[in-house]
Amino acid sequence: MHTLYGSAISGNCWKPAFMLRQRGLPFRWVELDIFEKQTRTAEFLAKNPNGRVPLLELPDGRLLAESNAMLMHLGEGTTWIPADAYARAKMFEWMCFEQYSHEPYIASIRFWKFLEARGADLRAKIEERTPGSYAALGVMEQQLVKTPFFVGEVASLADVALYAYTHVAHEGGFDLAAYPAVTAWLARFAALPGFVGMPCVG
Amino acid sequence: MHTLYGSAISGNCWKPAFMLRQRGLPFRWVELDIFEKQTRTAEFLAKNPNGRVPLLELPDGRLLAESNAMLMHLGEGTTWIPADAYARAKMFEWMCFEQYSHEPYIASIRFWKFLEARGADLRAKIEERTPGSYAALGVMEQQLVKTPFFVGEVASLADVALYAYTHVAHEGGFDLAAYPAVTAWLARFAALPGFVGMPCVG
Repeated sequence: MHTLYGSAISGNCWKPAFMLRQRGLPFRWVELDIFEKQTRTAEFLAKNPNGRVPLLELPDGRLLAESNAMLMHLGEGTTWIPADAYARAKMFEWMCFEQYSHEPYIASIRFWKFLEARGADLRAKIEERTPGSYAALGVMEQQLVKTPFFVGEVASLADVALYAYTHVAHEGGFDLAAYPAVTAWLARFAALPGFVGMPCVG
Repeated sequence: MHTLYGSAISGNCWKPAFMLRQRGLPFRWVELDIFEKQTRTAEFLAKNPNGRVPLLELPDGRLLAESNAMLMHLGEGTTWIPADAYARAKMFEWMCFEQYSHEPYIASIRFWKFLEARGADLRAKIEERTPGSYAALGVMEQQLVKTPFFVGEVASLADVALYAYTHVAHEGGFDLAAYPAVTAWLARFAALPGFVGMPCVG
């Protein structure tokens, strides 16, 4: 059985949980408290030197970090990875976009809002990253007015990656009213067979 | 023929240039001045709504953004992508690590140093991201004391992705003396057949 070390509030951790369920693979969930820095203990750093969740332990004990690498690994041989070479390349493009131009903005601000609820004052950081968040939503909107999913007619790993933090963006205070194609895509994704959103575990 | 829109000072742009050369594919290089915001013009945003280089134009005119997506696309069918499923997953892991935990630190600081040479004062931002830069080098060191390349005995796309900004880290003021395995890996990569480092174009 797979073991998934994660945090129930993390969209990155939702990604492999979603894909394990899509594959019909049972898994054990180990909840780590990221507020208590449980991913920075010596024991966990021995498993993932980068000190982050999610961390996937394969049935044979081998380890894999990075949520989008887990999607690639779990998605191989499924229709979540397009057969066409260019469509596959565009899927990679959107997955890279998600980790570089979306997650550090929308997910970070959502996390900082959680920290603010615990007493921190992160207004300056939140303000600095807000324009980048809406820029990412704007780039998504431009694609989704053209195609129902990011790489065409069918959902791919790109949609899984981008759904993660977009469907909880309101928890970061984001208003998606100006992004009707993104909003329609969120509903389209949630209607996929076997869909489970956040928190799906913990 | 492929066309690559890029900046000669960008490690992200070096990645697809390196792989095009490895594949023996001739390409046209279009230099854009990122200091002059030439990636934010209406003309370029029509090609890449995310407003970044590199941008790869395939011989048939189709476009692909995101340096690591280009590596995946150009690397398909070559030994740069491991045949073993777990090794391939680890390659993805290191490519995600590069974009999330390495590039935003080491590459950003190098770029800010270039901006400082043009009169900007970015000391606070540089100071904020310096610990993360050395943390990334530390994670790399831990792997490279165990294996000659990131995913084992043979160079993969993970090495291309991580070589990009590590081999010019000194331009960001980073001292690699405390990372002997990283230093040895840099020399090992530069000894690969057909190697061309930065600036390889422009």
